[in-house]
Amino acid sequence: MRVVAFGGGHGLSASLRALRRSGASDITAVVTVADDGGSSGRLRAERAALPPGDLRQALAALAADRDDTRQTAELFQHRFAPDGRDHSPLDGHTVGNLVLVGLMEQLGDPVSALDHAARMVDAAGRVLPMAVKPVGIEADVRGADPRRPDMLLTVVGQHAVAVAPGHVEAVRLTPADPPACPEAVAAVEAADWLIFGPGSWYTSVIPHLLVPDLAAAIVASPARRLVTLNLAAEPETWGLSAADHLAALRWYLPELKVDTVLADGTAVGDPEPVRRAAESLGARLVLAPVAVADGSPKHDPAALGAALVPVLGASR
Amino acid sequence: MRVVAFGGGHGLSASLRALRRSGASDITAVVTVADDGGSSGRLRAERAALPPGDLRQALAALAADRDDTRQTAELFQHRFAPDGRDHSPLDGHTVGNLVLVGLMEQLGDPVSALDHAARMVDAAGRVLPMAVKPVGIEADVRGADPRRPDMLLTVVGQHAVAVAPGHVEAVRLTPADPPACPEAVAAVEAADWLIFGPGSWYTSVIPHLLVPDLAAAIVASPARRLVTLNLAAEPETWGLSAADHLAALRWYLPELKVDTVLADGTAVGDPEPVRRAAESLGARLVLAPVAVADGSPKHDPAALGAALVPVLGASR
Repeated sequence: MRVVAFGGGHGLSASLRALRRSGASDITAVVTVADDGGSSGRLRAERAALPPGDLRQALAALAADRDDTRQTAELFQHRFAPDGRDHSPLDGHTVGNLVLVGLMEQLGDPVSALDHAARMVDAAGRVLPMAVKPVGIEADVRGADPRRPDMLLTVVGQHAVAVAPGHVEAVRLTPADPPACPEAVAAVEAADWLIFGPGSWYTSVIPHLLVPDLAAAIVASPARRLVTLNLAAEPETWGLSAADHLAALRWYLPELKVDTVLADGTAVGDPEPVRRAAESLGARLVLAPVAVADGSPKHDPAALGAALVPVLGASR
Repeated sequence: MRVVAFGGGHGLSASLRALRRSGASDITAVVTVADDGGSSGRLRAERAALPPGDLRQALAALAADRDDTRQTAELFQHRFAPDGRDHSPLDGHTVGNLVLVGLMEQLGDPVSALDHAARMVDAAGRVLPMAVKPVGIEADVRGADPRRPDMLLTVVGQHAVAVAPGHVEAVRLTPADPPACPEAVAAVEAADWLIFGPGSWYTSVIPHLLVPDLAAAIVASPARRLVTLNLAAEPETWGLSAADHLAALRWYLPELKVDTVLADGTAVGDPEPVRRAAESLGARLVLAPVAVADGSPKHDPAALGAALVPVLGASR
């Protein structure tokens, strides 16, 4: 079964780890390339590189479960920390971010670089960027300045949007029509399932729907489509219900049809509004316990994987 | 046949590439860890790491000859260059240096780190540091200040010694008794052949003879010993003949016995002084054409490998 999972960061990692456990044999991760914070932001600014952090996390999630490949994946995730001596210019970078930037410089092509990095961890799938150039995110946010809660301000940058207080009224890519990654478009066209979320809704999930060629491929693909809802709102989605999250997908890509919405029953509370929002996208709602046991709002890969088995195995 | 090759930098790489071609099946590289210049010097100062550059070059020389491992070795050797934009803190670092420092931080042990890096390139041998802590090199150099050619000055640091004008009268490690790498000592004890050079004589070859536990193991080992002479003097050895190079080994480790000295006939000119110097170490002199074809003073790995076959295969 050919599965394409869209997202970025921890949400996409959880989705990929769950997909491996669900038995999906052909996994492609399509990753937001809008990060401008931290190590990725510095590498993007200093070396004109695709921000590597979300790509690296997806690779680590797909690393083969052997001692050597696990070790290499842990190396990719190793972050240079201040060592108590003087400040080092490496502080905050992960080794994997530097490996990816090095491969992209060396090979001149992000897809070849990601394919080689995937071989280094014998990945159980392919990791692709949603676009072949870095993109920017900006949002009109009401109340971004807490002293003026009614004012609409434009917040520029993925990191700034993700942490801004207030209510996101519109999110955009800059440029508005970045070139999609052709291999990602081809994977969407050939997929059996397209999976959106979990993840930061405005800064990791919706950006994929804003890349024109990728959005067109998503709409046209014969694949079935699954939305995995988040377990809690984040700063960028404070005040949004689970139903609001689904409405946002429809707002940004009105032609989007969805087959299944997967949510955690405890997280959504009253399921009726979510069920109605799912139906307005053409989807049935599946409730399953998919959170980690300690009560924090994180997906448990094993539980999410178990929930995915009947969903992905269901006939249309 | 168990072979241990001592050195650092390009000379050791040429030796390792030649050894692979000679059919040696069990190769251990023991590498100087005194570098304080360039990327290695910065990483050593900023992150208290073993200087990784010479270790990385040895790993690249041993990388398996397959597309994927060659690609990873080329990644290790990829050097971040200024990209025409602003200065980047990564400028001058190689990816492999950053990978090695990351592995050493992550695993807390340089030998485990090097063994994992060796797996990443499926290396045809093991790469070990001569000491488990970085060491310093200093030298008393007559004429280090060209305006005062007779004055003896102490030059501090491997890089400074390597490029100083004048004549090295004494070279020392700081500290004088660094702890040897136990795995390197064990490899020496179990070896069939120990190979010294080619390489920067005072800053890459002789330092191994100055680590007390390593020197004791070299003297006590039942292995046969080969010295491969350089093709030309370097700034640190201006004015030294090939015979002087051999005399220097004896000066720093008087108990050293050598079985074979391998030199390029064109490079040594009149072989008699070299033959006599070899005999004073207990060695026979073997002359073979081992330089690259373009006339530059570099060993050609294929030619050196061909010359090694009868040397290493010879009975005592």
